[in-house]
Amino acid sequence: MDGGARPDPTLIPLGARAMARCDLLGAPPYSEAPDQLTRRFLTPAHRAALDVLGDWMCEAGMTVRLDAAANLIGRYEGSTPDAPALMIGSHIDSVRNGGRYDGALGVMLGIDCVDALARAKRRLPFAIEVIAFGDEEGSRFPASMTCSRAVAGTVDPTVLTMRDADGMTLSDAFAAFGLPSVDFTKAARKSGDVLAFLEAHIEQGPRLEAEDLALGVVTAIAAQKRLMVRLTGTAGHAGTTPMHLRRDPGPAAAEAILAVERICAAGSGGLVGTVGRITALPGAFNVIPGAVEFSMDVRAETSAARDAAVAAITAEIQTIAARRSIGLTVELLQDLPESPSDPVLTRLLEDAVHATGVQPLRLPSGAGHDAMVMADLAPTAMLFIRCKGGVSHNPAESVRADDCVVAHRAMLAFIDNLEREHRA
Amino acid sequence: MDGGARPDPTLIPLGARAMARCDLLGAPPYSEAPDQLTRRFLTPAHRAALDVLGDWMCEAGMTVRLDAAANLIGRYEGSTPDAPALMIGSHIDSVRNGGRYDGALGVMLGIDCVDALARAKRRLPFAIEVIAFGDEEGSRFPASMTCSRAVAGTVDPTVLTMRDADGMTLSDAFAAFGLPSVDFTKAARKSGDVLAFLEAHIEQGPRLEAEDLALGVVTAIAAQKRLMVRLTGTAGHAGTTPMHLRRDPGPAAAEAILAVERICAAGSGGLVGTVGRITALPGAFNVIPGAVEFSMDVRAETSAARDAAVAAITAEIQTIAARRSIGLTVELLQDLPESPSDPVLTRLLEDAVHATGVQPLRLPSGAGHDAMVMADLAPTAMLFIRCKGGVSHNPAESVRADDCVVAHRAMLAFIDNLEREHRA
Repeated sequence: MDGGARPDPTLIPLGARAMARCDLLGAPPYSEAPDQLTRRFLTPAHRAALDVLGDWMCEAGMTVRLDAAANLIGRYEGSTPDAPALMIGSHIDSVRNGGRYDGALGVMLGIDCVDALARAKRRLPFAIEVIAFGDEEGSRFPASMTCSRAVAGTVDPTVLTMRDADGMTLSDAFAAFGLPSVDFTKAARKSGDVLAFLEAHIEQGPRLEAEDLALGVVTAIAAQKRLMVRLTGTAGHAGTTPMHLRRDPGPAAAEAILAVERICAAGSGGLVGTVGRITALPGAFNVIPGAVEFSMDVRAETSAARDAAVAAITAEIQTIAARRSIGLTVELLQDLPESPSDPVLTRLLEDAVHATGVQPLRLPSGAGHDAMVMADLAPTAMLFIRCKGGVSHNPAESVRADDCVVAHRAMLAFIDNLEREHRA
Repeated sequence: MDGGARPDPTLIPLGARAMARCDLLGAPPYSEAPDQLTRRFLTPAHRAALDVLGDWMCEAGMTVRLDAAANLIGRYEGSTPDAPALMIGSHIDSVRNGGRYDGALGVMLGIDCVDALARAKRRLPFAIEVIAFGDEEGSRFPASMTCSRAVAGTVDPTVLTMRDADGMTLSDAFAAFGLPSVDFTKAARKSGDVLAFLEAHIEQGPRLEAEDLALGVVTAIAAQKRLMVRLTGTAGHAGTTPMHLRRDPGPAAAEAILAVERICAAGSGGLVGTVGRITALPGAFNVIPGAVEFSMDVRAETSAARDAAVAAITAEIQTIAARRSIGLTVELLQDLPESPSDPVLTRLLEDAVHATGVQPLRLPSGAGHDAMVMADLAPTAMLFIRCKGGVSHNPAESVRADDCVVAHRAMLAFIDNLEREHRA
């Protein structure tokens, strides 16, 4: 039988198994679409992923529950019951047509950490909880990180009235998921119950690859604002309205989008600005639009740098709108200040990376992460894993199995370091 | 009882009744949406409108049938059976959130013309057919005027594979409407059976109002092209991709939209260019778009002027895309050459307008109309009716009842003139 021999799946090393599990979750029923990975918050694909995650958490020795905000939590008790927990996790949702590792890999690595401890029959002076946050990306509803905010106790309950592109409210989406009458306060944790939060995540940028390093330690997460710009003119017939009599918000939006690009390209301190969504209304071939809406996502290493850019962009759009007699509203949908990692935990994580034989690169994160929200509840640390070409939010997202194995080892070493620190 | 007296609805003059009927059809069930008029092709709102139109046609003395392309046709026989017909009509569909008179008024005026002849018990040496075309606007499927093309025998049957925004094919939409296995050739008319085509329509422009005139006679319909532009770059994470490493099709589309505006504003000969639909894909706040698509509608009084503008715009977009390393496709979806009205019929219509005491203004039409398609089948003439502020494709679309009464008289006078010409 040796001609057809395949590797025994139980022999896949932990860490590499985490990666393989992300691959498994890259297609239906864990994706909404057949030929891509789209797993948005509270969809049947999200439900299917939680079902299999729950099985894996149980197999690794955890007790599993779904909290009031649709976060799946597996708990591995410490040496004493009800000990405070080290939480390890990330998000299980994806953007539309996204990559397989963004978020999910951090959850799977958490499961593999507990599995290693359980196999070794080790109990620690603290519990470990692995958490799969339901919504980090905000790819279904306008706000993001609703689920980690619920855990941190910082969510604004009015988000329940937000609507998705089909007009469904978040509240109704929870009900359709099996969670009617959501009370976010039931998902909130007491700070004394959470010792620390560790998030492992793909870098989603090119720096680790450029330095030929598997792992990085995050010093801080960039400040971010999400805004919606709405320009209003006069709808009209495309064939009968002379060019000079038009009040078309389309070219005004075009000038505004170029202003976002120009101002952000001229900036420094990690400044980036993105227009990801553009809609002309009513959206017919033969109708001059009455309104054009577009989203703006602006980030920088500091809130001050970000806010200066938002102010410059807004002033420029005001000038454009006034010159063209176009109405303008700019709505702030989300404001996340920069979030420095906890210095003590970060040192423990750097030491852990070092112990695996990898030189730890200290770097900021341009992407927002649940860790920045969890920082309101507990000290946080973040481990970055190299990703190919820095590509993310894209089906071409790719990681290396050997990097995942090293990441798993570093996380176990971090747990050892935390145990030593905790006993001291 | 005189304090609460209301005008007897049977006393509303013909023409004004046509306008009142358009108002009635401005809300559900004749609209898809509760607070606006949206009546797209083959929707339940379209069906509801045809049901009541059929009743009105019957009451006016016509026999009614639905043809193979979902056109509703009422026929009022001439003095001999199977005589060739003067067709009078326009379209019954609307753009999204459109006006009540665009298209519908021409159908209702046709019914009122037959009603006047039937009340007078007049039979003519030709039949009169009133037609309500199902799709002129193209507000559901990418192509427009599919229904008048079917009557003229010029429709391309591959349009049946076109899809609406929900992914439904035109073929399936016909089946859902009760017309499975559509064969457009069954809707085509022989040219000997159609003596002439007369379309009354609101001007959708400001010229009649500026001249303080109720009616105009159309000399020609402008040439029109519809195109879809697709710009492709590289999707990526909004937070981690530095500005200088992006291949974002959004700013490229923005430059292209400004080029459309600049080139058309600098042109002459009625040149207009409109970007009515803009979509960024995947369309998430935190994802750099991988592609941006937008529609272009370009019109001018001659095909040559229109094609020169399309060529200049396309060359400019090619330059923009090349400079930004962005992929580009430009797809031609529709090509309608300029369509001059029939000179004999137009003179008969001018005389008819004159006979009502209105000075007829001769003017070109910037908007496309079913008449330009019907010109392939029979000689055509078009009557324009003043509309307030030139506003159309907009809920603010407005006409005057007295103008509709005069339009009705002019159409009856045209029928008299055609009868005289026909006997001569």
